[in-house]
Amino acid sequence: MKRLAIGVDVGGTNTVTGLIDETGNIVGQRTFKTRDYPVFEEYAHQLVGEIEALRSLVPDAQIAGIGIGAPNSNPFTGFIEDPVNIQWYDRNADGSRGMLLRHIPLVSHLKQFYPILPIAIDNDANAAAVGEMIYGGAQGMRDFIEITLGTGLGSGVVANGQLIRGHGGMAGELGHVILRPEGRVCGCGRRGCLETYVSATGIVRTLMEVMADDLRPSQLRSLPPERIDSRMIAEAAQAGDPLAQEAFERTGMLLGEALANFVAFSQPEAIFLFGGLTAAGQLLWAPVQRSMEQHMMRNYRGQVKLLPSGLPRSEAAILGASALVWQELRHPTARR
Amino acid sequence: MKRLAIGVDVGGTNTVTGLIDETGNIVGQRTFKTRDYPVFEEYAHQLVGEIEALRSLVPDAQIAGIGIGAPNSNPFTGFIEDPVNIQWYDRNADGSRGMLLRHIPLVSHLKQFYPILPIAIDNDANAAAVGEMIYGGAQGMRDFIEITLGTGLGSGVVANGQLIRGHGGMAGELGHVILRPEGRVCGCGRRGCLETYVSATGIVRTLMEVMADDLRPSQLRSLPPERIDSRMIAEAAQAGDPLAQEAFERTGMLLGEALANFVAFSQPEAIFLFGGLTAAGQLLWAPVQRSMEQHMMRNYRGQVKLLPSGLPRSEAAILGASALVWQELRHPTARR
Repeated sequence: MKRLAIGVDVGGTNTVTGLIDETGNIVGQRTFKTRDYPVFEEYAHQLVGEIEALRSLVPDAQIAGIGIGAPNSNPFTGFIEDPVNIQWYDRNADGSRGMLLRHIPLVSHLKQFYPILPIAIDNDANAAAVGEMIYGGAQGMRDFIEITLGTGLGSGVVANGQLIRGHGGMAGELGHVILRPEGRVCGCGRRGCLETYVSATGIVRTLMEVMADDLRPSQLRSLPPERIDSRMIAEAAQAGDPLAQEAFERTGMLLGEALANFVAFSQPEAIFLFGGLTAAGQLLWAPVQRSMEQHMMRNYRGQVKLLPSGLPRSEAAILGASALVWQELRHPTARR
Repeated sequence: MKRLAIGVDVGGTNTVTGLIDETGNIVGQRTFKTRDYPVFEEYAHQLVGEIEALRSLVPDAQIAGIGIGAPNSNPFTGFIEDPVNIQWYDRNADGSRGMLLRHIPLVSHLKQFYPILPIAIDNDANAAAVGEMIYGGAQGMRDFIEITLGTGLGSGVVANGQLIRGHGGMAGELGHVILRPEGRVCGCGRRGCLETYVSATGIVRTLMEVMADDLRPSQLRSLPPERIDSRMIAEAAQAGDPLAQEAFERTGMLLGEALANFVAFSQPEAIFLFGGLTAAGQLLWAPVQRSMEQHMMRNYRGQVKLLPSGLPRSEAAILGASALVWQELRHPTARR
């Protein structure tokens, strides 16, 4: 009998569910619009319907559990806590939309439908790290760091073969390590956080800085800054634009510097980079590698592999979510 | 039958051995001068003699293993690698002193005498962290960081109830996280490492900086800088010397800033401070606590305990070394 895991990727736009086997083959996949169900109970009802539809694809399969990747989720409580990009509401007695929910009891709600199945939840970057370990480039590794480069910078740290979750389930927020005291203002209210430099939004800010420092012409000077995104910078850089190239150089140098410090913490066998910015290839890769080696303590040099994620980009979220199931079976989470 | 562990603290001056029970009671303790045995084989012979003398104190005890705390030791290989403060030599065929040994096979040598006993080795700070977990203030904690403030800054990180050792056994070198790029020159060859600011030697450098910045008189201005040590600064600060107080203030602020970044990595339940500088009490404690809270991401504030080590200062090294035995029995090290 085939053992399969359910993966759920809760996004601000789409909620994707998948049925995945132990080697990472996606047996089935479904998608619905998260915002079509603003009342949480109705969202959960829809989600259960999707899961059941997936299960019916392989009626004789043994479902090992449900893994959920969701921003701002807490693996210990099973809640999504103060989500930023998603809003759900309570339901009033008359069925109408009630108050905004600050903490969403996703796991306990699903437990009503699946009381026996293991259900694991974690944030997207931690799910990506576990996905890397179970299906991706980190198979067989016991110590590695996953860095996800999106709008912000997310991370998941694996040490001794286990995800580091921390005392309250919020470990591995490496995007909010302060790299430059007195540096750029961050959405978190502080200054100089790594993700204000190294992320899709960070590189746009860096391009502005380069434009200020440099006199060379660039096609990007003809655009309103708020219309520039990281993909345009990557395309310009690949077409030879010197300012766009310099923006990647600075981004890579800063990431390498930060990674060197992370190595002093957990001495990983490898660091995996995942996400949009990595599509820029050597423009990003070369300065990261150079800067990491240059900034590391001598004992660590030449030993830490810098690798692209081994997860397919478009399916990474759902794979990561489902991987939480296999991780949960190995190391059950103590719910708090 | 009583279960006892042998603890061995290998220091540049003294080698201390102890017989310790599971609750941290020291049943017996012995000391010899490390430098009296510059030929490694003779040192190891002496060490075995000391261990046997300890065992004879409780003839009916069951010895659970031998734990060794030694600078620059590698838990995976069992070697002391390129030690800085200790030098041992090979023995020539005629018994005379041979070549300087770069890698000292301490564990494999002891294995000849104790082939069945578990033997664990780690650096002093990791041993202190394990000691904190087994006998000290971290009993029952699964996630904490131990910071040892001596000549340098050492650290041991525990996550998911296990010491983070890293891929090559060299994780947790937080003294060499770069806090100030372009900052002070470090013995490791780089610049701005945390321990160039926060350590017994770091605070002396900070005092020099304060003397340069500040015009107020201080009794410390009458002394040659190379004669000033951290204890003199602590005494002057406690006696009201404004420059010495400012040196502690700056040291504490920088440590707090660094700790805030460490929290983003592993979200510990507590951070323990151990070592000479902590004897300065609130002079150090108050700015560390204030700065850590101020620099942490909002989600972490008010949640991480800053605690003094619960290990008795004079016996911490031997307790930490022996604690490695109990840790080894729980999570055996895969030798490489």
